[in-house]
Formats: sequence, structure tokens, C-alpha cells
Amino acid sequence: MTFPKKQLGEFQLIARLCAGLGPGPRTILGPGDDCAILASGRRPLLLTIDSMVEDVHFRIPWFPAKALGYKALTVNLSDIAAMGGQPVACVVNLAIRNGLEAVFFDQLYRGLRTAASASQTAIVGGNITRARVFAITIAVVGETRGVALRRDSARAGDDIFVTGTLGDAAAGLRILEGRLRAHGQARRFLVKRFVEPAARLAAGKCLSVIRPAPAAIDISDGLLQDLAHILERSGVAAEINCDAIPLSPAYRAVTAGDIDLALRGGEDYELLFCTRPGTSEAALSRRLGLAVRRIGRIVKGRGTIELVGRRGLRAKTPLLSGFDQLRSRKRG
Amino acid sequence: MTFPKKQLGEFQLIARLCAGLGPGPRTILGPGDDCAILASGRRPLLLTIDSMVEDVHFRIPWFPAKALGYKALTVNLSDIAAMGGQPVACVVNLAIRNGLEAVFFDQLYRGLRTAASASQTAIVGGNITRARVFAITIAVVGETRGVALRRDSARAGDDIFVTGTLGDAAAGLRILEGRLRAHGQARRFLVKRFVEPAARLAAGKCLSVIRPAPAAIDISDGLLQDLAHILERSGVAAEINCDAIPLSPAYRAVTAGDIDLALRGGEDYELLFCTRPGTSEAALSRRLGLAVRRIGRIVKGRGTIELVGRRGLRAKTPLLSGFDQLRSRKRG
Repeated sequence: MTFPKKQLGEFQLIARLCAGLGPGPRTILGPGDDCAILASGRRPLLLTIDSMVEDVHFRIPWFPAKALGYKALTVNLSDIAAMGGQPVACVVNLAIRNGLEAVFFDQLYRGLRTAASASQTAIVGGNITRARVFAITIAVVGETRGVALRRDSARAGDDIFVTGTLGDAAAGLRILEGRLRAHGQARRFLVKRFVEPAARLAAGKCLSVIRPAPAAIDISDGLLQDLAHILERSGVAAEINCDAIPLSPAYRAVTAGDIDLALRGGEDYELLFCTRPGTSEAALSRRLGLAVRRIGRIVKGRGTIELVGRRGLRAKTPLLSGFDQLRSRKRG
Repeated sequence: MTFPKKQLGEFQLIARLCAGLGPGPRTILGPGDDCAILASGRRPLLLTIDSMVEDVHFRIPWFPAKALGYKALTVNLSDIAAMGGQPVACVVNLAIRNGLEAVFFDQLYRGLRTAASASQTAIVGGNITRARVFAITIAVVGETRGVALRRDSARAGDDIFVTGTLGDAAAGLRILEGRLRAHGQARRFLVKRFVEPAARLAAGKCLSVIRPAPAAIDISDGLLQDLAHILERSGVAAEINCDAIPLSPAYRAVTAGDIDLALRGGEDYELLFCTRPGTSEAALSRRLGLAVRRIGRIVKGRGTIELVGRRGLRAKTPLLSGFDQLRSRKRG
């Protein structure tokens, strides 16, 4: 039991985190006080929190500290992207354990700063506590642009789109764990997709000016699970064409075409969104500046996901596994 | 290694947390989406994050779950109080481990809701992750009232005041740990001060209308350490009269008058503030609706704290221990 008295060394860690960071345009008071102070804005605020825990989300031996800092902020930025918003500022809570050296924190902070400056997010404060495992928890304040993209606005008849490719991050994790074999460029690509995902902020902002506003979510827990959240909140069902799910060449190469990780693997941080029918993949891809694929449509119903297409039949893993509240069935 | 796929049970935990909570007046969209949405306000925003970790800040066997939920939010509200602000909304990150049962979470949530509704803070979202130890990390968004109370505005000549009494929470922790003996009412009082501290929100708001705005901080890490933050940020020094430090009857009874815990013990969450001289304890106590004691004054210098008064001489523990960057000396 350590009496929770912060050591001056911990304050120095926070000071180092924020060293060299210019204040954001909205920052009135940055780190070093009880709270940060931000100038008010006219747009509604977005607020989110997310955490990465050692031995749950990553292992330090195979996760570079810089990438860890980058990803810890990116998973939060992805939530802002899924609302079509712009991040403004963040606060960082570090739970630190013995055995982590100064160079680890320097690299961690470099990654955090890279993600922050690329997205124009000010790091305005933090807190450090001791713990048995390392964890980084970040809360981000953002602002809506246009209209917020919510999970509850999908309607029967909507087309379902996803950005990018799916399953790459899950394949990358399995490569790092030694559960999937890959070499060369395919290995590098898939591992990078797990270790250094992108938050689709620009695409989210483009979506937020479409009317009616698309329903949207970021794919952090896997296509089926995240789609299920939209279906539950919107009171609808979905039909997914497994043959249309976008797969990267590297993913195809290492999985022999098994789409299970693309359906169920998390951490791709791509956007899934639902729009009124009539807009082509090509038009949306141009508009978002990012490849977009139509993977199915919203139908009347109560939360079920029907998987169609030949690939669904070839999936090696039973498609039902792990889905308490979803009934999905395969169809030729 | 658990693949970080959130289970539906975890979403249900979040839903239970927020069940029965009415949305706050500023809440446009509460839990259940990628982000919460809050209506914008005209006042500058406050943002803070804090964490409580099992076996660092508490032990589950001697910390009631309801009090844990209450305190986890309160330590954040205390940061808002120290800026003279009003909390608006919070997001809650839970790191959960095996072995915690539904009744634990129900009680935890009851405590959180009690602290939230008493302070008019909306709980607008959360995230749940697995971990080896239980931890609760909360970020709060607030708004300034009047002018924000900062750490960098203390000036030589200012009087230094504290609210309430000091050292109680540290004594309470030591009682729970079996390192200090106490019985009856004194034990109950001191343990409660550790387990269920109050955030001095009303007092902070009263301070924020004083001109010039007082420098302020909440006493979370101990009087000397928190005062040192004000001195460092303001570029001044301080003289503290140990005989004036407010001690509760229970504290006096169990410590035999040793002021070490009152100087160095954390977690009282009282406010320390510095005002231009000329206002009496009685006038400030009336204004704040809370007992206030003048414990010293700000002097020219660079971060040193000079301890004066007879009690300082009688302190059992050497007054210098644990202070890397402070030079304090005793004087009769």
C-alpha cells in the first residue's frame, strides 16, 4: 500500500509530456493547475474517454512506446471522428508501474504529441498515479461540425458503407502474438494497422455535412458488434453481403480468404455509416477522400444481422460464436 | 492476453451506471454513442481527469463500494472547486477485474450518482476495460464562475487560508491500515473524512467573485506539497504558522497533537487560498459558509516554506522528510 502522495517526479513526468507543445488556439490555461481552462465555443461539445491497459490491449515488449502514445490518443480521436467532430483538447491519465524508464516515457510522449498535433488536439493536462500495470486513459473534448453523426438515426432502406479495409488490425495482433504467420510487406502492413491505426477525422467531417445526417460508428470492437450497436439504437436490422467486405491484399494473403477477422476483429478504427440509398461508392469515396465500400443495407427488424454472399459460407469460424444478442444466419 | 473485444455485459454495466439518471440541463446526448454531446455555454470550460487505483488509493475490503464511487467523482469535483467552477458533466472509465460482483457495481454506481446529483454533474458516458486491478478514472468538464482561481496569482503579502481541518483523512487512512489506533466517534469521524471527503464547490464559487481573484488549490497531496505548487507557479515563498493549522478534536485525540499528518497527509480536499491582506477569518468564514483559518502569509522568495510556531518544534516526524525541492526550517 502506497500512500497516494504524488511525488515531484510524477509532476515532472506531466511537465515533460507537455513540454514543447504550443497551446492550442482554445487553450486559456494548460497543464500545471487543478484544471485546464478552454475558451468556450458556439458549437455543441463532444466528450469521450477511452483506455489502453497493459496485457489487455498491448504488451510492452512488442508495442513500441511511441506507437502506444500515438494509438492511445487515436482511439479517442476515432470516437470524435465517428460523431463527425473536430477534437479540441485532451487530458491524459497515466497509471505507471516500476520498471518503466525515462526513455519509455519520452517515446510515449512523442507518439502522443504526434497524434495531437496531426489532429490539432491540445494536450492540456494530466494526472499520474502508481499501479501494478501500465495504463493510459485519455478524455477528449471536441466540437461538432455540421450535425453530429449518431448511432440512432439508421432507417430501413439505408445503404451501409465502411471506409478502408477490415480485419487488418486483428490479423496484425495475431501476428504479434504468434498465432498467425506472415512475412515481409504483408506482415509490416498488418502489424502497422494494429499498432498505428488512423482516426478517420477528415472522413467523419465530410459525412457530417450530408443530409439527412448518416448514422455512424467507428469499428473498434469488430464490424458485427459495432453494427449491432447501430441496429439496437436505431431499432432496425441489417443484411450484410460478405462478398463486399473490403479486404486488403495483405489480409487476403495471410488468412486465405477467411473473413472471420474482418467480421469480428476489432481495432480497425474505420467508420461504418448508413446513408439514404442512391449515392455510389465512387461518389462517396471522392467526397471522403478515402476508399468506401457498400457492404449491405438496413432492413426492418430488431437487431438481427443477416450475412449473405459466398464468403460467409466459407468462413472457417462459426459465424455465431460470441454473439449473445444477435441472431445471424448464413445464406448462399 | 485478452483480445480487447468489449463484451455485451460490459455495455450493460455502462447502461446500469446511467440508469435512472436524468439528463443534465446541458446534455444533448448521453451514454450509448461514440461521444456524449453537450450544449455549448458562454463561459470558459474547465477540464480535469483523476484516477483511483485499487491497492494504491484504496483496498476493496475496507472501502465500501458506494463510498468508492462517491469519492472517485469527488476528487475530480475538488479540482473544479479549486478553480472556483461549477461541474457540468463527466465520463467514467472503469478498469474491471474478475471477482467483483454485481452488487459491488450497484453500490459503486449509487455512490457515483449521489456525488453527481449533489453537485449537478451529468454522467454522460463511460468506457469499461478489463485489467488486473480495479481502477476508476473520471474526467469532468466544468465551467468557470466569476474568474478562475489559479495557482499562479499569489503575491507577497497575501494571507494564506485553509478551509475546514487538516490531517483528518491521512489519520483515517492510517486507522484503516491499522497503523493508528482510534475508537468510537473519533474513529468514525476520521475514517469518514478519508472515505467520503467533500468537494468544496460552494466555497470555491464564493472565492471566485473576490477581486483580485485569490490563488487557490485543493489539498489532495498534503498542505506542504500543494502549497509548494502555488509557490512554484507564483514565484513566491511562504511562512506557515504551525500553531494556526486547524485540527479537528478527533485528530488531536488520536495524534497527541503531532501535526505531521496535517502538514503532509493528503486527501483532505480542503481548499488552500491566498488573498490580499485585510479580510478576517470571521468575514471569510461567513462568506464561504465554512470555517476558514489563516495559517500564514506569502513572502518574497523562491518556493521555500518557513514553518514557525511552537507546534512545529514538537512535531514527531522530521519536517524535512520527503521534500526534495523544498527547504523548510523550524523556528521557535
